[in-house]
Amino acid sequence: MVERLGPPLEEPIFGELAIIGVGLIGSSLARAVRKRHAARRVVLADHSPETLARAEVLKLGDVATKDIAKAVETADCVVLSAPVGANEKIARVMAPALKPGAIVTDVGSVKVAVIAAVAPQLPPHVHLIPAHPVAGTEQSGPDAGFAGLFVNRWCILTPPAGADDRAIQRVRALWEAVGSNVETMSAEHHDLVLAITSHVPHLIAYNIVGTAADLEEVTQSEVIKFSAGGFRDFTRIAASDPIMWRDVFLYNKDAVLEMLGRFNEDLTALQRMIRREDGDGLFALFTRTRAIRLGIVAQGQETTAPDFGRPRVNGNGQS
Amino acid sequence: MVERLGPPLEEPIFGELAIIGVGLIGSSLARAVRKRHAARRVVLADHSPETLARAEVLKLGDVATKDIAKAVETADCVVLSAPVGANEKIARVMAPALKPGAIVTDVGSVKVAVIAAVAPQLPPHVHLIPAHPVAGTEQSGPDAGFAGLFVNRWCILTPPAGADDRAIQRVRALWEAVGSNVETMSAEHHDLVLAITSHVPHLIAYNIVGTAADLEEVTQSEVIKFSAGGFRDFTRIAASDPIMWRDVFLYNKDAVLEMLGRFNEDLTALQRMIRREDGDGLFALFTRTRAIRLGIVAQGQETTAPDFGRPRVNGNGQS
Repeated sequence: MVERLGPPLEEPIFGELAIIGVGLIGSSLARAVRKRHAARRVVLADHSPETLARAEVLKLGDVATKDIAKAVETADCVVLSAPVGANEKIARVMAPALKPGAIVTDVGSVKVAVIAAVAPQLPPHVHLIPAHPVAGTEQSGPDAGFAGLFVNRWCILTPPAGADDRAIQRVRALWEAVGSNVETMSAEHHDLVLAITSHVPHLIAYNIVGTAADLEEVTQSEVIKFSAGGFRDFTRIAASDPIMWRDVFLYNKDAVLEMLGRFNEDLTALQRMIRREDGDGLFALFTRTRAIRLGIVAQGQETTAPDFGRPRVNGNGQS
Repeated sequence: MVERLGPPLEEPIFGELAIIGVGLIGSSLARAVRKRHAARRVVLADHSPETLARAEVLKLGDVATKDIAKAVETADCVVLSAPVGANEKIARVMAPALKPGAIVTDVGSVKVAVIAAVAPQLPPHVHLIPAHPVAGTEQSGPDAGFAGLFVNRWCILTPPAGADDRAIQRVRALWEAVGSNVETMSAEHHDLVLAITSHVPHLIAYNIVGTAADLEEVTQSEVIKFSAGGFRDFTRIAASDPIMWRDVFLYNKDAVLEMLGRFNEDLTALQRMIRREDGDGLFALFTRTRAIRLGIVAQGQETTAPDFGRPRVNGNGQS
C-alpha cells in the first residue's frame, strides 16, 4: 500500500516557503515541496551551522541561513519545524520581519500549549494555521529525511476559531501536495488523540528501556542478547530524538498525565488478572487487541510484512 | 547482518526428530532441520486437523499425525512446541511411548513452571533438556514459519542439575544447526531475563492497545488513523498469539509480577518528572536509553533501517 508522490504541480501553492528547523520533518518537507514544485522558492533556517552545511550539500532549499528574520522576510508561508519548546522564541524573533498576509504554520506534536506560546508573538496581519503531520521515524537530522515521509500519512490541522478560510485551504493544499490526507480538529482534541496514539507509547517505551538498564539481576549484555523477544521494538521507539520528546511531555503535560492515568488503571487490572491467574480474562484482552491492528493494516497505516519487514533468511540461505 | 543457514550436515544429529505442535516455531524448526539435514526423519504431531493438513501440503515433515504417542515412539528427540500450558498433558500422553535414552526438549518461553509440570510425567530413562529459542514474529501457524527464523538468534538451554552431558550437547548441536547461538543458564534466571526482555513488553503493549480501544473521548477510528505516531508498533506486538501469551503470563507469574513492579516504580518516577516539569530529568532518561539500542544493533539483533525497514516512498515516487 505504498502510494506515490505525484508529478510536479503546474502552479505552486506558495511563491516562497520558509522552513525553520531542518531536522527529519523539516528536511523531508523541503525535499517533498521541491519535488512537487509546491513552492517556487524554499528558504531554510536552522540554528546549527552543521545542519545548514548539510542542507547545502543535500541541496534541500534555495537558501539556507542562520538568520531567522532574514529567512522569513519575503516568505508567503513559514513552517516552524524545530522542537516545540523552541517555537516561542523563534516566533518572537521572526515576528517583526513577517510580511502582511503571511501564513505561519508548524509541524509540532503538541498544539494547545504551542499555540498559546506562539500566537501572542505574532503581528495581527499574519495567519496562524497550526498543523501536525503524523509521520516520522526514529532517526533525526537533515540526512534522515526523505521526500516520501508524508505519503499516505495523516496531517492534522487545528485552526483557531475565526481563522482565515483561504489560509486554511492553502495549508491543506501544501500537505496534500506532499501526499498526506488532511483532517481538521480542535487543538484540545488533537492533544488528547496524540497523547494516546503517540506520546504515552513513547513514554512507556522509554520507561521500560530505562527499567531494563537499571536491573541488577539481569545484565545489560543479557538484555541486548535476548532482545528479539519483543524488547528491541521498544528500543527503536526509545531511540527517538530526546529534545523533541522532552518538549512533547513538557508541553502536553495535562493530556499525557490524563492518558497515563487510564493506562495505569488498566495495567493494575491486568496485573490483578495475572495474580489471580484469570486465564479467560487475559485471553479475552489479547484477542480484542487484534481488531485494532487489523483496522490499522486495512487503512494502509501499516504493512502486513511480519516483524516490520525485518530481513528474513530463507531456507536457501538467501535473505 | 543477515547470516546464512549453512549447507546440509554430512551426519545428522538425530535419526528421528518428533515435533509436537506445528505453529510458527514448530514449523520453522521442521523446515530448518530438513534443509540442514539435522535429522534423518522428521515426525510432526498436532491436535488440529487443519494444521496437520497444512503440514502435509507444505511438506514440513515425513509424517504428520494427531497421535502423539505414535509420533514419539521411535523418536531420538522430541521437541514440545505447543503453547506452554499444553505441555503437561502432552508429556503425560507421550510418556509411556518414549524410547529409553530419548531426549525431550521444548521451545517454551517459560522454564521453571514448565519443567515442574513436565518432569514428573516422564519416565526416568529419558533426558529432559529444556530450551527456548528467542525468536519469533507476530504471526502464528504453520504457514507463518520459515527456515531462517533462528539464524543469528539466541537459544537458551536450561538443563537441570545432573542432566546428561551428551544429551545437552546434542540439543545444543540441533540449535546451532538451525543457525542459533546457544547459551546455558538456570531456569530461574531464564524466567527473570525473559520477563523483562519479552513478557513485560508484550504485557504493556497489550495493555495500551486495550486502553486506546476503551476511550470515549477518542474514537477507534482516530486511534487507527493517527497510529503512525508510535502506537502501531505496539499493535504489532499485541497481535501475537493470544493462547501462547495467556500461558506465558500464567506460567511465569512471579517473575512477570516482579519485573512489572520495577516497571511501575520507574513509571511513577517518570510521571512525577512530567508533573514537576523536570525537563533535565526527562532529557537524561531519553538520552540514556539510546545506548541500549546501539548495543542491540551492534550485536546484530536488530537492523538499522529506520522504521523497521517499512517501505519508503522516495522522491521519484518509487518505493
